[in-house]
Amino acid sequence: MTQGTIYGVGLGPGSQDLMSVRADRLIRQASHVAYFRKKGRTGHARSIVEGLLAEGAVELPMEYPVTTEIPFDDPRYNELLSAFYARSVAQLIEITDAGRDVVVLCEGDPFFYGSFMHLYTRLQGRVALSVVPGITGMSAAWTASARPVTWGDDVLTVAMGTLPEDALAERIAQTDALVVMKIGRQLDKLRRALARAGREDEAWLIEYAAMPQERVVPFTEVSGSVPYFSILLIHGNGRRP
Amino acid sequence: MTQGTIYGVGLGPGSQDLMSVRADRLIRQASHVAYFRKKGRTGHARSIVEGLLAEGAVELPMEYPVTTEIPFDDPRYNELLSAFYARSVAQLIEITDAGRDVVVLCEGDPFFYGSFMHLYTRLQGRVALSVVPGITGMSAAWTASARPVTWGDDVLTVAMGTLPEDALAERIAQTDALVVMKIGRQLDKLRRALARAGREDEAWLIEYAAMPQERVVPFTEVSGSVPYFSILLIHGNGRRP
Repeated sequence: MTQGTIYGVGLGPGSQDLMSVRADRLIRQASHVAYFRKKGRTGHARSIVEGLLAEGAVELPMEYPVTTEIPFDDPRYNELLSAFYARSVAQLIEITDAGRDVVVLCEGDPFFYGSFMHLYTRLQGRVALSVVPGITGMSAAWTASARPVTWGDDVLTVAMGTLPEDALAERIAQTDALVVMKIGRQLDKLRRALARAGREDEAWLIEYAAMPQERVVPFTEVSGSVPYFSILLIHGNGRRP
Repeated sequence: MTQGTIYGVGLGPGSQDLMSVRADRLIRQASHVAYFRKKGRTGHARSIVEGLLAEGAVELPMEYPVTTEIPFDDPRYNELLSAFYARSVAQLIEITDAGRDVVVLCEGDPFFYGSFMHLYTRLQGRVALSVVPGITGMSAAWTASARPVTWGDDVLTVAMGTLPEDALAERIAQTDALVVMKIGRQLDKLRRALARAGREDEAWLIEYAAMPQERVVPFTEVSGSVPYFSILLIHGNGRRP
């Protein structure tokens, strides 16, 4: 029997018609579909493909043993996650060893800060792998902002809100265009870093880009908490005729 | 009569099935399709959609008056390009004023170093505009490299090969993950900048990502000239369980 293939399929930013034609076809034809989710939730990746799966498709939800309950610098966090990824890999291999393909649903682009990467590096060399790139959440964010993000020789920096404040302030000061993701609990730190870089007035917050709740707000008007799907954006102003 | 809408539609990196479902639908249904090209060429954007256009679709090729014949810091370059964009905008408005929609084909993602942006800013406020994001060439490049590009808190820097050598060397030294585009004639300078940053051995060149001629080469093995569709990549090695 021929071993199956594992497809890491980028779903794009969250609107069903922003997934690629290839992703759409693979998902509709899949006999086995796997995806990450938080325990007790539908999972965002799964909700994006609602209505697309074939009748009788077998679903494999992979439920995180921990998300934010333990800080990621705690050694137990790494142990729990490593064991979880090892279990998930074993489940996927079981399916491909039975000769079936599996489609793993990946929000955004699979190789850009994605969860699937943790499976991918553990699966490499053991099974045939195929990755389908996707439209990133940041592309959806600058599209929502109705303004191009990079011109001419602009430098774009993509940074995570989880970086230390000093690093953030420095990165913000030194770049033309900026994308910050993983903002959630980092909002106050990010605000201070923007102020230190003197760029508060240039920043925009884009919530739920490409989703029905999409919202574009000048960063100076943001208060309280921000949703998980939030991206901070500073547009470049580079060379143009 | 209602004025039509101009759609800036991201085609993705070059493989027809990597455009979004929305892009695919808009292109197949379009009565008017516009695209940039070099004089006397088919144009890459046009070639990506070969076989998709409806019978009788009206095509509007917008032919650059100049590409690399005049350096872009020469004032004549800006004058020629500005006049060209103004003419193209007038042609597009003529179509929408006649009540028809126009799909403008955009390689990659329209708002990410794209030519359409020059039309977009000139059209804003004059006509209804809708932009469809696309999978970027850099996503296709890191997918082709068969290795994730950013992990955990990795910083990604996107820079153009047209930057001065000092700036490139500094950017390369200071980032975790790196993407360099517009490499063509900048290869020797880029090689020196990588060496100064001590990162030559980490760099990969990806040619024609997601296209039939796709090729992934360690940068140290690159010699001679590189094709227009080339992206330099350094992968991040950030936190992971």
